[in-house]
Amino acid sequence: MTSISDSETTCDGFLGGRLNVIQPRRGYRAGIDPVLLAASIPARPGQSVLELGCGTGVALLCLGVRVAELGLTGLELQPLYADMARQNAARNEIAAEIVIGDVAAPPPEIRSRRFHHVIANPPYYEASSGTPASEDDREQARRERLDLAAWIDTGARRLLPRGTLSIVQRAHRLPDLLAAMAPRLGGLDIRPIQPRPGRPATLVIVHGVKESRTPPILRAPLVVHAAETHLKDGDDYSAALAAVLRGCAALP
Amino acid sequence: MTSISDSETTCDGFLGGRLNVIQPRRGYRAGIDPVLLAASIPARPGQSVLELGCGTGVALLCLGVRVAELGLTGLELQPLYADMARQNAARNEIAAEIVIGDVAAPPPEIRSRRFHHVIANPPYYEASSGTPASEDDREQARRERLDLAAWIDTGARRLLPRGTLSIVQRAHRLPDLLAAMAPRLGGLDIRPIQPRPGRPATLVIVHGVKESRTPPILRAPLVVHAAETHLKDGDDYSAALAAVLRGCAALP
Repeated sequence: MTSISDSETTCDGFLGGRLNVIQPRRGYRAGIDPVLLAASIPARPGQSVLELGCGTGVALLCLGVRVAELGLTGLELQPLYADMARQNAARNEIAAEIVIGDVAAPPPEIRSRRFHHVIANPPYYEASSGTPASEDDREQARRERLDLAAWIDTGARRLLPRGTLSIVQRAHRLPDLLAAMAPRLGGLDIRPIQPRPGRPATLVIVHGVKESRTPPILRAPLVVHAAETHLKDGDDYSAALAAVLRGCAALP
Repeated sequence: MTSISDSETTCDGFLGGRLNVIQPRRGYRAGIDPVLLAASIPARPGQSVLELGCGTGVALLCLGVRVAELGLTGLELQPLYADMARQNAARNEIAAEIVIGDVAAPPPEIRSRRFHHVIANPPYYEASSGTPASEDDREQARRERLDLAAWIDTGARRLLPRGTLSIVQRAHRLPDLLAAMAPRLGGLDIRPIQPRPGRPATLVIVHGVKESRTPPILRAPLVVHAAETHLKDGDDYSAALAAVLRGCAALP
């Protein structure tokens, strides 16, 4: 499948309506993970950013909304998602180059360049787990076809000196993530994301810096929901989360 | 030096005075780290516990105060500290066997046995950092003469099936700790310890379970001081910490 009809997509608002993206009604759909990833990137105007496996472009475009004049590039294996990412960039008037290609073997136009920031939200399923996908092309984006280390290796290779690689991942992959990042990057910066106060982390965002010798840091968690238990039907985002999700703020 | 005079030691209370230990006035002195390590161990009456590098025995004896009828064994390289650990066990009427030997090459009486729990508070300095010690035998306990992986390898080998290895370490060593534990143990359980709310972790306690396939978990941090900044001269331990340090509670 390389095209998708309107009835198979939804248009969803992010960052308090500053960003509107089309995405498939079924298959991979962006939640808060790419929004938090984008909010965590210390990008400054004029810098370059590469997203590996950019999907419909939510992380890349959230970053483009928050920080002006970035050079945004997305690499996406599936033409269907790459096409939606291009449409989403155009519809939000954000300049972004979307390249079709494989994270494990990037095309020459990616391999020949280096970036200030590389970001990725690799698929969450381990290659050895889960059931065969019934919807090959859509489910594919959600499955871990590449070892996490391959994403990190490609990302680290595409960084300028002192550039940052930033990955969002389920918290239980933290040992795998650190094992892949520690040999290639310094300045590891681990930020747990907890659903509620006192609960174990469900996600982590880990940054690494190319050619840095700064020791690792384990930050205080970002707490998504303010209440210790689910209280009512409406959301109850913590102040920090609401500022990121609706106010387009950087992570504290 | 294999003996120490009274003027060179102090007697300090832990766990609200339930435990009183002598320790050198200079050199390695126990802070809250071994107390928190002991409070984190899921030991039940009748089980066996080995502490690698037990020093003056604070972690082992804190655990002995909290949980009855444990078989406690400490391995300590330096006769001076081993002797103090024995004195501390006797003075607190806790049965504990202290064996002199090297964590990297444990003596046969340790190598021939397996334990329900192995615990360690390895020295915090990396082998490649710091200055040469002026007080060889005392400073030695504070320096990382063995690679962290050697502690974890010895600890994992000495576990019974489903036994737990628990390590307290500075937070910046988390990648090294996980890299050494992940190949040898399952059920990794990471507990950050933050000095104050919102601050990066300074310590981590990581547990691993022999022959477990449970995925890793990144717990909510334990917060040491309740206030966001230092407010007054007295301590301001959080309720959870005060319960552990004074009330002899297990970690929540």
